[in-house]
Amino acid sequence: MPHLVILYSGQLERETDMSALCNSLASTLLAAHDDAGKPAFPPGGIRVLAYPAAHSAVADGGAASLAAGGSGDYAFVYLNLRMAAGRTPSTHKRVGDALLMATKAHFQPQFASRHIGVTLQIDEGHEVFDAKHSNLHPLFAPPSA
Amino acid sequence: MPHLVILYSGQLERETDMSALCNSLASTLLAAHDDAGKPAFPPGGIRVLAYPAAHSAVADGGAASLAAGGSGDYAFVYLNLRMAAGRTPSTHKRVGDALLMATKAHFQPQFASRHIGVTLQIDEGHEVFDAKHSNLHPLFAPPSA
Amino acid sequence: MPHLVILYSGQLERETDMSALCNSLASTLLAAHDDAGKPAFPPGGIRVLAYPAAHSAVADGGAASLAAGGSGDYAFVYLNLRMAAGRTPSTHKRVGDALLMATKAHFQPQFASRHIGVTLQIDEGHEVFDAKHSNLHPLFAPPSA
Repeated sequence: MPHLVILYSGQLERETDMSALCNSLASTLLAAHDDAGKPAFPPGGIRVLAYPAAHSAVADGGAASLAAGGSGDYAFVYLNLRMAAGRTPSTHKRVGDALLMATKAHFQPQFASRHIGVTLQIDEGHEVFDAKHSNLHPLFAPPSA
Repeated sequence: MPHLVILYSGQLERETDMSALCNSLASTLLAAHDDAGKPAFPPGGIRVLAYPAAHSAVADGGAASLAAGGSGDYAFVYLNLRMAAGRTPSTHKRVGDALLMATKAHFQPQFASRHIGVTLQIDEGHEVFDAKHSNLHPLFAPPSA
Repeated sequence: MPHLVILYSGQLERETDMSALCNSLASTLLAAHDDAGKPAFPPGGIRVLAYPAAHSAVADGGAASLAAGGSGDYAFVYLNLRMAAGRTPSTHKRVGDALLMATKAHFQPQFASRHIGVTLQIDEGHEVFDAKHSNLHPLFAPPSA
C-alpha cells in the first residue's frame, strides 16, 4: 500500500500518455509527507495501475455536448487511492491535493480541447485480512547501523 | 459520481454487446429519481465502465455444469455502483431494482442458453478525500435566471 | 460472492500463467471451511477475475532495483477478496492464509528471479443494496429428499 487505481474511458488511450501519468503520480506519492515532514508512504509500497475501459457510457450519451457545440464525446477518469487506515485528515488532504494537481497538469490539453471529467477519491482500507509478500521493501530499508 | 463499474468473464465479450449494456445502465441512472421525484444523480456525474477479465475462474471450474448437461463454461458479471453517501434506503432500492431489471433484460439471451451469474451491489462511498475537476457538469446546469 | 479481483503489472502477463492462478485460487476458495468445518462459501458464488494493467508504476521507478543490481523492473500483484459480512475473524484468517500460500506458491519462480511485491486483502462488503440473478447456484443445490 498505497494502491492507486485509475479507470478511464477508452478514447483517452489514444489521446494521452497514461504511462506518463502513472509515473507522475507515483512520484507524487513518493514525495508526499506526513504532518511531521516524514514520507507519508514506504517507497516500496507505492503502486499505480491504469486501466482503459473496454466499454463506457458517460452522462447523457453526448446530447448536451452536441447542444453546446461539442463533439458529443465525453471522456472521464476515476482515480482511487486506497491506503491503510490511520493517517491524519491533513495528510489525506495534502496527498489528495498533490495528486489532483498532478492529474490536472497531465490532462491540461484535454481540458482545453474536449469534454472531460476527473474524479479523485481516497479511501482508507478497513480490510479484515491483510498480508504482504515482497522483495521490494528491503531495497528501500535504511542501512543497518 | 455515481460510478458504475462492470467486471465480467471474458467470453461474454464475444456473446453480447457490452457497450449497449453501458448505455442502457447510464440511461437507467439518468432516469432514476429520489424520494421527492427529483433526479437521483447529476447527469454530468454519471459514469459507467465495463472491463472484461483477461483471466477468470468461476465456481468449480465447470464440473457441476457438465454433470447437468451444460457446456462446463460459466459466465458471470459483477456490477458495482458507488455513489456518495447520504441517499435514502428507498432510493438505493429503487436505483438497484432498476439497474437489475435493465441488466436482466440485457442478458436474457444468455440466461436462456448458458450458465451465468450476475451480482449487483451498491456501495456508499466513505472516502476521506474527494475532488472533482470537470467541464461536463456545466453542460447540464440550468440556465441562469 | 465471494469475488476475488486480481490487479497486476502488465509484464507478468508474459512471465506467468494467470489463468492457472485464477483456477488455483478458485479451488482454494472452494476448499475453505468455516469454524464449524462447513464450506466457507457457496460453490456457485465463487468468482475470480484477473486484470493486467495497461500502464503501471511501482515505487521509485526502478532506481533502487538498479542500485541493488536488479533490472529496474518491478512487478506487483494486488489481490482483493470481497465477501459478505458476517464471517468470523478466524475464518477470515484461514481463508486469507490459504490464498496467500497458493499465491506465493504460484509466484515462486518470480520471487526467485525478479523484484516483485504481492498484497492480499480481504474486505467485508457493507453494500446498501445487493441483488443476484444466477442459474449457477441451483447446480450446486443438494438433491431434495
